[in-house]
Amino acid sequence: NIAVKGSIGDRIFAPYTIFKGKAALSVAPMLPTFTKLESGSLVVDRRGSIMLTFMPAIGERKYDRERRQVFSLSATEVGSLISLGADESCEFFHDPSMLTSNAGQVRKSLSIKPHGNGSGYFIALSVVNNLLKSKDNLGVPVTTAEFAVMKTACSFALPHIMGWDRLTNKMPRGTEGQT
Amino acid sequence: NIAVKGSIGDRIFAPYTIFKGKAALSVAPMLPTFTKLESGSLVVDRRGSIMLTFMPAIGERKYDRERRQVFSLSATEVGSLISLGADESCEFFHDPSMLTSNAGQVRKSLSIKPHGNGSGYFIALSVVNNLLKSKDNLGVPVTTAEFAVMKTACSFALPHIMGWDRLTNKMPRGTEGQT
Amino acid sequence: NIAVKGSIGDRIFAPYTIFKGKAALSVAPMLPTFTKLESGSLVVDRRGSIMLTFMPAIGERKYDRERRQVFSLSATEVGSLISLGADESCEFFHDPSMLTSNAGQVRKSLSIKPHGNGSGYFIALSVVNNLLKSKDNLGVPVTTAEFAVMKTACSFALPHIMGWDRLTNKMPRGTEGQT
Amino acid sequence: NIAVKGSIGDRIFAPYTIFKGKAALSVAPMLPTFTKLESGSLVVDRRGSIMLTFMPAIGERKYDRERRQVFSLSATEVGSLISLGADESCEFFHDPSMLTSNAGQVRKSLSIKPHGNGSGYFIALSVVNNLLKSKDNLGVPVTTAEFAVMKTACSFALPHIMGWDRLTNKMPRGTEGQT
Repeated sequence: NIAVKGSIGDRIFAPYTIFKGKAALSVAPMLPTFTKLESGSLVVDRRGSIMLTFMPAIGERKYDRERRQVFSLSATEVGSLISLGADESCEFFHDPSMLTSNAGQVRKSLSIKPHGNGSGYFIALSVVNNLLKSKDNLGVPVTTAEFAVMKTACSFALPHIMGWDRLTNKMPRGTEGQT
Repeated sequence: NIAVKGSIGDRIFAPYTIFKGKAALSVAPMLPTFTKLESGSLVVDRRGSIMLTFMPAIGERKYDRERRQVFSLSATEVGSLISLGADESCEFFHDPSMLTSNAGQVRKSLSIKPHGNGSGYFIALSVVNNLLKSKDNLGVPVTTAEFAVMKTACSFALPHIMGWDRLTNKMPRGTEGQT
Repeated sequence: NIAVKGSIGDRIFAPYTIFKGKAALSVAPMLPTFTKLESGSLVVDRRGSIMLTFMPAIGERKYDRERRQVFSLSATEVGSLISLGADESCEFFHDPSMLTSNAGQVRKSLSIKPHGNGSGYFIALSVVNNLLKSKDNLGVPVTTAEFAVMKTACSFALPHIMGWDRLTNKMPRGTEGQT
Repeated sequence: NIAVKGSIGDRIFAPYTIFKGKAALSVAPMLPTFTKLESGSLVVDRRGSIMLTFMPAIGERKYDRERRQVFSLSATEVGSLISLGADESCEFFHDPSMLTSNAGQVRKSLSIKPHGNGSGYFIALSVVNNLLKSKDNLGVPVTTAEFAVMKTACSFALPHIMGWDRLTNKMPRGTEGQT
């Protein structure tokens, strides 16, 4: 079954990108990884996530990919995003070096705050890196329509990053061996 | 077609687990089983469900799987959960020995109650077992974001536990025999 | 590829059934049929629907399948059902003999009306058959949770009965011939 | 695996069409195209869209396909449509010749405006073509139920036109080479 095998290692790039004056924000799902037990069962190894990538603008319609900053939303953080009311805000804090000797040296915070006039949100990422002595602030205004795309696409992706979509790939147990 | 056959019996473990101070709550879908009739048609044999598993804490970030208690939500109970308003509560009662000689000996009740301040729910399972002379109460506070994940994932899973996702695996009748 | 061919003709029965005192209501999706053009393209031939089947009770937990009455919801009628507000009602009229010489002889009407207290709906089917000189009225009270299952399952099924799920079965055009 | 290959190039036509007195409106998803990089990765080449097609009526239940006008909704415009409140309106402007020497010669605008009485929307397309010295106005009243179908079907289609549904076709990375 070479056709199927050949596509297994393929990666697909289909980010949803919002280009604005000072920065761009890309949203893309990252699938979980599974480990196969000797019994043949699959167990989720590393959870999937929704990856947010911010790139600063360096000219008209030009963005600096080298200076990008990323923030990876867990399933529960995606839950916050998709249940956010029109006037509500939320903020998440990550330490990418957590549980290592560099814990606390890099602090990332992502905030989603409503515009006063009910016309969308401002999504901002702040990264304070004590190791590099750097401080980055990147933010993008997101319209109601763009946020609706983010909500709908993230709601669609949520069961996938949790590994629940694997359900659909199984034959019903009652037909085992009958194919 | 060995590749496909080989994966038929595989099981996948991808629970969504909420770890809290006194207990942990795992949420996982259970697919229905089908029976194949002589005509070749598939009939749902046992309905699927959403399995809730509670485990008591026995130390920091440690939970006792041996003392777990489970509660299996039917499609209609999942309907209650996903339609629950912000200030509403619901409660379900199960007797795992229903229609046997032990009917009434084990009583399980699951309750979902909103925190007063609109910041989520408390999900609690009570199990009274007259046979073992035991009584267990396990509960987990669930944030709005965590409940949004449960709602979205359970809404996704609902057609699957009902067996309606089998629709997508069929070729349209109009192309029968033309492959 | 016999395994796949063998399953093409299979039908799957997975209705969602609500059993109540005077009648039972079954909800099940019916897929569209396609016609294959000479160009290889598929065109929807007959639209899919959501089939509602009412059966009168003839004893405790016993229902008379012989006296069942059916009502087939089109995509737009499904749109009415899934967008129905908590206090709203809707009614549909069908003539199964429309455009034949028996037009007007059989009149079916389905109504969905909210209980006064916000706790669900009453779904009723009336069939007046002048040919058989018969008149049937079958109705089922549906709880909020049961209606949530109907809404979620019908929302899931809607793109399938419209034939839009066929989208997912296609390879992207950019990779044609590269498998 | 000829069966699968044979279906790759097939196209499927399953528009949702609303027939009204003065015009008909067809809604259909257009999938994105992908480019395969040397690494084997797939990158979205051309974004998908939701294609709206308006046809003027030329008699009872007859519509003139020759005089049709189309408007292609981007992912973000679909986000506007699916997040539109009951009393809200939206309008989009397209120039099909943008970035060519004919820029500005053809101006298309699509508007979605609520009926005053909360019973649906009026969807209208205006096309001003300076090259052909033509001006077309086509509009269709859409009921709440029909708009619910459009919203549900477009929400379903959104991840597909973004290319995010490709997620489900991949094996988890942890099982690579183990099939």
